[in-house]
Amino acid sequence: MDAFNPSIQLTDADRLDRLRLIRSENVGPRTFRSLVRHFGSARTALERLPELARRGGAARPGRICSDEDARAELAACGQYGVSLLAPGEAGYPPRLATLDDAPPLLGLRGARETAMRPMLAIVGSRNASGAGLKFAGQLARELSQAGFVIVSGLARGIDQAAHRASLAGGTVAALAGGHDRIYPPEHEDLLAAIVERSGVAISEMPLGHEPRARDFPRRNRLISGCALGVVVVEAAHRSGSLITARMAAEQGREVFAVPGSPLDPRAAGTNDLIKQGATLVTHAADVIQAVAPIMERPLASSFREHDGDPLAPDPQSDERERIVSLLGPAPILIDDLIRMAATSPAIVRAVLLELELAGRLERQGGGLVALI
Amino acid sequence: MDAFNPSIQLTDADRLDRLRLIRSENVGPRTFRSLVRHFGSARTALERLPELARRGGAARPGRICSDEDARAELAACGQYGVSLLAPGEAGYPPRLATLDDAPPLLGLRGARETAMRPMLAIVGSRNASGAGLKFAGQLARELSQAGFVIVSGLARGIDQAAHRASLAGGTVAALAGGHDRIYPPEHEDLLAAIVERSGVAISEMPLGHEPRARDFPRRNRLISGCALGVVVVEAAHRSGSLITARMAAEQGREVFAVPGSPLDPRAAGTNDLIKQGATLVTHAADVIQAVAPIMERPLASSFREHDGDPLAPDPQSDERERIVSLLGPAPILIDDLIRMAATSPAIVRAVLLELELAGRLERQGGGLVALI
Repeated sequence: MDAFNPSIQLTDADRLDRLRLIRSENVGPRTFRSLVRHFGSARTALERLPELARRGGAARPGRICSDEDARAELAACGQYGVSLLAPGEAGYPPRLATLDDAPPLLGLRGARETAMRPMLAIVGSRNASGAGLKFAGQLARELSQAGFVIVSGLARGIDQAAHRASLAGGTVAALAGGHDRIYPPEHEDLLAAIVERSGVAISEMPLGHEPRARDFPRRNRLISGCALGVVVVEAAHRSGSLITARMAAEQGREVFAVPGSPLDPRAAGTNDLIKQGATLVTHAADVIQAVAPIMERPLASSFREHDGDPLAPDPQSDERERIVSLLGPAPILIDDLIRMAATSPAIVRAVLLELELAGRLERQGGGLVALI
Repeated sequence: MDAFNPSIQLTDADRLDRLRLIRSENVGPRTFRSLVRHFGSARTALERLPELARRGGAARPGRICSDEDARAELAACGQYGVSLLAPGEAGYPPRLATLDDAPPLLGLRGARETAMRPMLAIVGSRNASGAGLKFAGQLARELSQAGFVIVSGLARGIDQAAHRASLAGGTVAALAGGHDRIYPPEHEDLLAAIVERSGVAISEMPLGHEPRARDFPRRNRLISGCALGVVVVEAAHRSGSLITARMAAEQGREVFAVPGSPLDPRAAGTNDLIKQGATLVTHAADVIQAVAPIMERPLASSFREHDGDPLAPDPQSDERERIVSLLGPAPILIDDLIRMAATSPAIVRAVLLELELAGRLERQGGGLVALI
């Protein structure tokens, strides 16, 4: 089983600092983690942000979330029943916590114990076929009865069918917008039922955040990240569900796909996934058998944001210039950059942080960075 | 490409001897091969048959096909346009010739050059869905246009769709009965069109042989044996097409399967094949890519029936008794039998032949034998 003992309990002050840091301009989950590793705490990172951004060449200082704004958000969350949890706290999905880009604070509404149980994701087309909807429901019901929590994206089609069929066993809806901005709006009732029946809604976005197109792929990493594996039920070529499958593979999650006729465009994506090595699913047992050995392995030790390395000295201007000159719009591996820069890894990382905070650097998956 | 130079041209006398031997009681393709290996020629084997059967403990001597009957069959074949070909002769499908149980004489009607080209088998349900029929036709047409000859079983459903779509490029129908006993009868016109358009009908059965249920699995080995690979388009659990797929795997042929919805019982067999390692097919290119490297390899050297080993001495009665006592109704590996019999392999093989000809031994695939 997913043996995981929550080991962390933030103080109110810690939580406030983390919230201010992650809500500040140019700070995403990866930058957050780099900052905390570099400075040892969110508090110190916040204090050093303006100086770092200036050194990184920011034209104007990035907006830092104020103590007041963060307190207001925490209060609003409280009224809305949303807990803001750090990786390692009770209610933070254990597998999600192991990601490099795990949300530093995850907004969770509902039963925390459900979010701690082993999960399987079921996703698929919004305009699903009748057969696809029926199979998604059947699969979700059987996996739910086998003890798995079903996680999905609350979308039309396959997602909602998976949620509905697993309501009794607990289901997790990962949202692309804030907890008060449900998409699609007609699924507000479904979400209410999910939370009422010991399910959970999760989001890394602040209350009031309207989901934009680019928020959905970002949200998809939460769906796969929470789960032992992702089952794609129906998916056309180049559909969002395939993004979730790709993320699952990058995160080391199992990828499952439901086959369909070659003449059905809604099966083109899932058939391709099987060709690429995804496990073919026709019964719940196909999924259960594949994840059983994974559940027996202990989870990678929980999220450690600060590894206790001594803080790096501030980079010298010539070091900074040399590193910047090695960067360009084409992505480069940080490891390659360190080799070429002929300086310490800590210095390279510090310069990258400065550039990031100045809004000049983009961090991609797989250790790649590029100038914007 | 399938480089294969026909290297054999039987004399009329050879052909007559082979026909008499294979049409004699208790002589199947494997026994035929053992006899010719053991005695060096079909003629000598024929002469020794009664004695062997008697030694094997036959209650009555097995019927030996008379010279007269064999001549009559050859004459009837000639009138019907059927050639009786030996492995290695022009018109005998080269890959079929490499099987352990290749028919010693294959009845062929139609264009011999078509039977020498690289083949792919397409098989599937008799009660196929509209989508299955459409896909089978589409695939057969594309593979045919890519230069492959399509081989199938002339059955209702998927088989006939594959034949029809590949008429222009040449297609091979493998029959379970004699060339004058077409099953199902409503496909006589289709078979006429196949032969007329440079296609081929093949059968190992004599003219006048009505196909029985047990002849179809036997026929299926010809379909897979001729081909580089077998594509199963639709197949329920435990259907005949799955027997063809199993034979293909045993023969070292590629196995391909077309996926379908888990809710469609006609896709249950094909989805299972994919789970077991068959290549998923949604486009002709999936098949072509998989067989391309196989076509580049030279074909195993052509069928050698007589390996030039010195003839084994006749077994002594105590040797025969010892070997028979080691046999039972449970199948045993010939190699194990040789080890346990503490005598020469040639002696063991000679005793097995005697038992076979006496109708007391069943030879199964994979070197297994059992008493009947």
